[in-house]
Amino acid sequence: MEKVTEHGGHLASNLGVVELTLALHLTFQAPHDHILFDVGHQSYVHKLLTGRDLDDLREPGGTSGFTKRSESPYDPFGAGHSSTAVSAALGLAEADHLAGSDAYTVAVVGDGAFTGGLAFEGLDNCPPDRRLILILNENEMSISPNTGRLARHFSHLRASKSYLRAKRLTRATLTHIPLIGRPVYRILRRFKRRVKHSIYRETVFEHLGLHYVGPVDGNDLDDLLACLSYVKTLGQTVLLHVKTVKGKGYEPAEKEPDRYHSLPPAGCACGETFSGVFGKTLVDVAQNNEKIAAITAAMSRGTGLDPFRAAYPDRFFDVGIAEGHALTFAAGLAAGGYTPVVALYSTFFQRAYDNLLHDAALQQLPLLLCLDRAGVSERDGTTHHGIYDVALLSGVPGVRILAPVTFRGLQKAVRQSIGAGGITAVRYPAGGESEAVRAAFYKDPDDGAAFGGVRVYDTGKEPQLTLVTHGPMAKTTLEAAEILLQIGTPVRVLLCEFLTPYPDLAAVLRPQLTGKGIVCAEEEIYAGGFGMNLSAALFAAGETRPVRVVATRDGRLTPAKGDSYKQTFSVDADAILSAADAILKGETPC
Amino acid sequence: MEKVTEHGGHLASNLGVVELTLALHLTFQAPHDHILFDVGHQSYVHKLLTGRDLDDLREPGGTSGFTKRSESPYDPFGAGHSSTAVSAALGLAEADHLAGSDAYTVAVVGDGAFTGGLAFEGLDNCPPDRRLILILNENEMSISPNTGRLARHFSHLRASKSYLRAKRLTRATLTHIPLIGRPVYRILRRFKRRVKHSIYRETVFEHLGLHYVGPVDGNDLDDLLACLSYVKTLGQTVLLHVKTVKGKGYEPAEKEPDRYHSLPPAGCACGETFSGVFGKTLVDVAQNNEKIAAITAAMSRGTGLDPFRAAYPDRFFDVGIAEGHALTFAAGLAAGGYTPVVALYSTFFQRAYDNLLHDAALQQLPLLLCLDRAGVSERDGTTHHGIYDVALLSGVPGVRILAPVTFRGLQKAVRQSIGAGGITAVRYPAGGESEAVRAAFYKDPDDGAAFGGVRVYDTGKEPQLTLVTHGPMAKTTLEAAEILLQIGTPVRVLLCEFLTPYPDLAAVLRPQLTGKGIVCAEEEIYAGGFGMNLSAALFAAGETRPVRVVATRDGRLTPAKGDSYKQTFSVDADAILSAADAILKGETPC
Repeated sequence: MEKVTEHGGHLASNLGVVELTLALHLTFQAPHDHILFDVGHQSYVHKLLTGRDLDDLREPGGTSGFTKRSESPYDPFGAGHSSTAVSAALGLAEADHLAGSDAYTVAVVGDGAFTGGLAFEGLDNCPPDRRLILILNENEMSISPNTGRLARHFSHLRASKSYLRAKRLTRATLTHIPLIGRPVYRILRRFKRRVKHSIYRETVFEHLGLHYVGPVDGNDLDDLLACLSYVKTLGQTVLLHVKTVKGKGYEPAEKEPDRYHSLPPAGCACGETFSGVFGKTLVDVAQNNEKIAAITAAMSRGTGLDPFRAAYPDRFFDVGIAEGHALTFAAGLAAGGYTPVVALYSTFFQRAYDNLLHDAALQQLPLLLCLDRAGVSERDGTTHHGIYDVALLSGVPGVRILAPVTFRGLQKAVRQSIGAGGITAVRYPAGGESEAVRAAFYKDPDDGAAFGGVRVYDTGKEPQLTLVTHGPMAKTTLEAAEILLQIGTPVRVLLCEFLTPYPDLAAVLRPQLTGKGIVCAEEEIYAGGFGMNLSAALFAAGETRPVRVVATRDGRLTPAKGDSYKQTFSVDADAILSAADAILKGETPC
Repeated sequence: MEKVTEHGGHLASNLGVVELTLALHLTFQAPHDHILFDVGHQSYVHKLLTGRDLDDLREPGGTSGFTKRSESPYDPFGAGHSSTAVSAALGLAEADHLAGSDAYTVAVVGDGAFTGGLAFEGLDNCPPDRRLILILNENEMSISPNTGRLARHFSHLRASKSYLRAKRLTRATLTHIPLIGRPVYRILRRFKRRVKHSIYRETVFEHLGLHYVGPVDGNDLDDLLACLSYVKTLGQTVLLHVKTVKGKGYEPAEKEPDRYHSLPPAGCACGETFSGVFGKTLVDVAQNNEKIAAITAAMSRGTGLDPFRAAYPDRFFDVGIAEGHALTFAAGLAAGGYTPVVALYSTFFQRAYDNLLHDAALQQLPLLLCLDRAGVSERDGTTHHGIYDVALLSGVPGVRILAPVTFRGLQKAVRQSIGAGGITAVRYPAGGESEAVRAAFYKDPDDGAAFGGVRVYDTGKEPQLTLVTHGPMAKTTLEAAEILLQIGTPVRVLLCEFLTPYPDLAAVLRPQLTGKGIVCAEEEIYAGGFGMNLSAALFAAGETRPVRVVATRDGRLTPAKGDSYKQTFSVDADAILSAADAILKGETPC
């Protein structure tokens, strides 16, 4: 509680699995046995039990907010994105099976994660006779409340009378004896007999040929110990269904688990955000356009769509943690004459690349894709950087990418794109707008300009080179420009409101380029990203001055303690200064 | 039969749905009602019934082998990749629901497609009260026989006695009366009553809260008509389960549906293929390395893995049409100490981008990814081009891309990559090797060189420029080089066996570059692809000569009748000649 309140992070989900995590470590011999946590945001207790502290939780270079292989041998498989644990656990279990190992693989998977098709693909592939225990941790929440049909099925499964009898009996006995020896064995045998009779033969899992046990009280340590010992003896692939209370033990979190799902770090200003502005804008636009439908993948709150959900429940679709479906479903809505607006985090859009390409772009179906949390993620880290989307989107034919950096810009971008036809991707960072960026590029917020041009800011007369940037990197680029000015080098900064088509951007930019060369700066991957595409377009347009690209060359890098991700990726002001210096000195490339 | 035998295409699946397609068009009013076919490879009968002929089936510019929106208003949603129809149909149904339309949406989805998580995501989201009829067409096959747990569940559902009685009764009556008026109404009411009693309440679908009807004989037109009329009246979302016989009516196809799934065009030489060589090589390597496991996504035959399946059934995993799971599962196997080899078609890998990035690359887990059918697909067309993988893979940190063009090269690439650690992607085209390419670049096949360098071929002395190419484009590049020689311009052709890391490739290439400039030629998308990355690396390494990239600028383009895709994409010999000409003439860019 103390550490999460200080550093921010996932609270409610971790409070819910304290007993479960203890039970797992008491029953299984990690790291010989493999314990996986889907997403990994509910692994804090596991981390504390396996020699990690939370003193630097979610700080760059500190303890990750998710499971991470490089952090500990007790994390056999890292995560961050949802619904991967069944597939990964099956891989580990098959490896052990092939190698003749007696190790167990246990995966804790939330009910939200089961709305992801990947989890289903994994289940569909599980042989019935592996040392594999899949724990469905039902807390009736993904990040937003679940609405999927499977989740409803889960919640209809109630503890049987037989289980409740076994539970009372076991508790009565176990509290009076140590957890070893023959008495326990007899109790467990009895428990087993009773649980056997309490099995729901008619769950989805049974139909898939998997042994289902549950539901069991996931906040009752004795029950869990008895139950895990029992399922361990079965020698089968087991789906153990536990019901836990999110936020267990902390009343505010129990009451409002959605709000306490993820906390910001202490002292974090809670002003207006791009997400909030996006949501409000969409509510507004949808008032006069009944063809607008909003779609999100279990991120109604995070993407700012809660007001839209409230205002237009019929036209709001939370499809669960199912980004691929979100896009294909949106393409279907578009084929039916609607204007779908899909709001996802940039990092999760990575899962819907083919759906955007195959189902929308190749069929020329229009949609608006709003990508939140674009750019480097200092707190969530490696798995959550929004640094791949520009490269992915640049290769999808016909996609127009817009990158607003102010609330006003985001409003305009959304308004203009709806009904414009084609596919527009609007990407914007976490948090709010930067005062410095607004002051430099949008002196007159009411200048009436349409969104989608290039903004110019000169730090002084006769700029000696041009810095070109977009989106979340604008602030850093201005910082670098100010430093350059201080050392006597005025520069021009060009802020691109649109990125693609790159030949169009190059045409707009060229007359504005000035000085000895150009530095393109962005918080994206280098390969196939903005800088690379723009350089190519500039050269194709006849540009002969040197162009240097500041971008992320290896998204796997992790900061040393005390460093930032931006520093580690060389996408900070220093990196821009080095590139500028090389150009000013006329250094040949490399 | 005649047209498919002539042009090649999907045979068995279309023969299986003749009665079903007739029944759909007799019961529903397309295009007011929407009829969707998942994948679309079983839509030939539908095409014949809706004013299209198969005279130019699968020819570029001819009738597509899949459904296609631009081809007909009777194709409300195009496809090519599997498992999209549920999501798309739901989108159409929701649009109609919101707009107050009385249109029905019907989607025909094969049992194979239900192994894809996207279909599950769609099902999980279906409200119970839409005019939406999802038809599970069970023919116990995807392309290879299904092995998933859900497919097993389907096949356990047998027609009930009550249904069989209703079936006999309906048939007896319907054959003697026209399909209109009150008698039919009475019969249908009776049918309905009986079918109601025959419903399996215990299917997976019922647990998901969806109304399940079936299974019904999908090759019996009368049954289908009665059944579709019945489900149409329900006013609910219905999952109608039909059982059809793949290849129905054509004995060889009924007996060997796997073989008759897809036929090559008449006169197509059936020599050795890259797929075959890959499969044999892997069998060979796995004999001395018991840690190798092979994974495919319902493409055991297509990727050449059938011999591996036969030789090492324990280490072979066909995961169904589930590319995402294939990669995450492989990462799990790698975490368990195995060396996974994942064989997919390039186009289907697009669905597993995030799994490769998030589950393997960011965790630095080793695997070998073998991408078959790389390059432009003249027969399958738009949805099946293998032209996106290089751009996708170039942005995934730590991936080494190899591009063999000879069987020998493929053998070496596979042998060298296994156990080398890290992630290697080996990509190769459909079909077999080109004699011309082998003769030019591999004069001495036993020269003992390791795979992964750059091969040089000069068409004459003092080459006047350099053509750089890789993979499926090598043959076209040689053709262009020969034409250039004929008009008096000897050139150097450089064949890249490896693509990434691009700075390494640039370093190897630079000493070999000659003449006035460089043309990079490839059958890939331009944005973020090989040519763009290589140009950037060459410029960064100090190259000052002009570099022009021949690549696909818009993967949506469809050829005019008589043209090829390569021509339409400007990735043919002509395109190389134009680029060469511009360089030789010293034209400024653009």
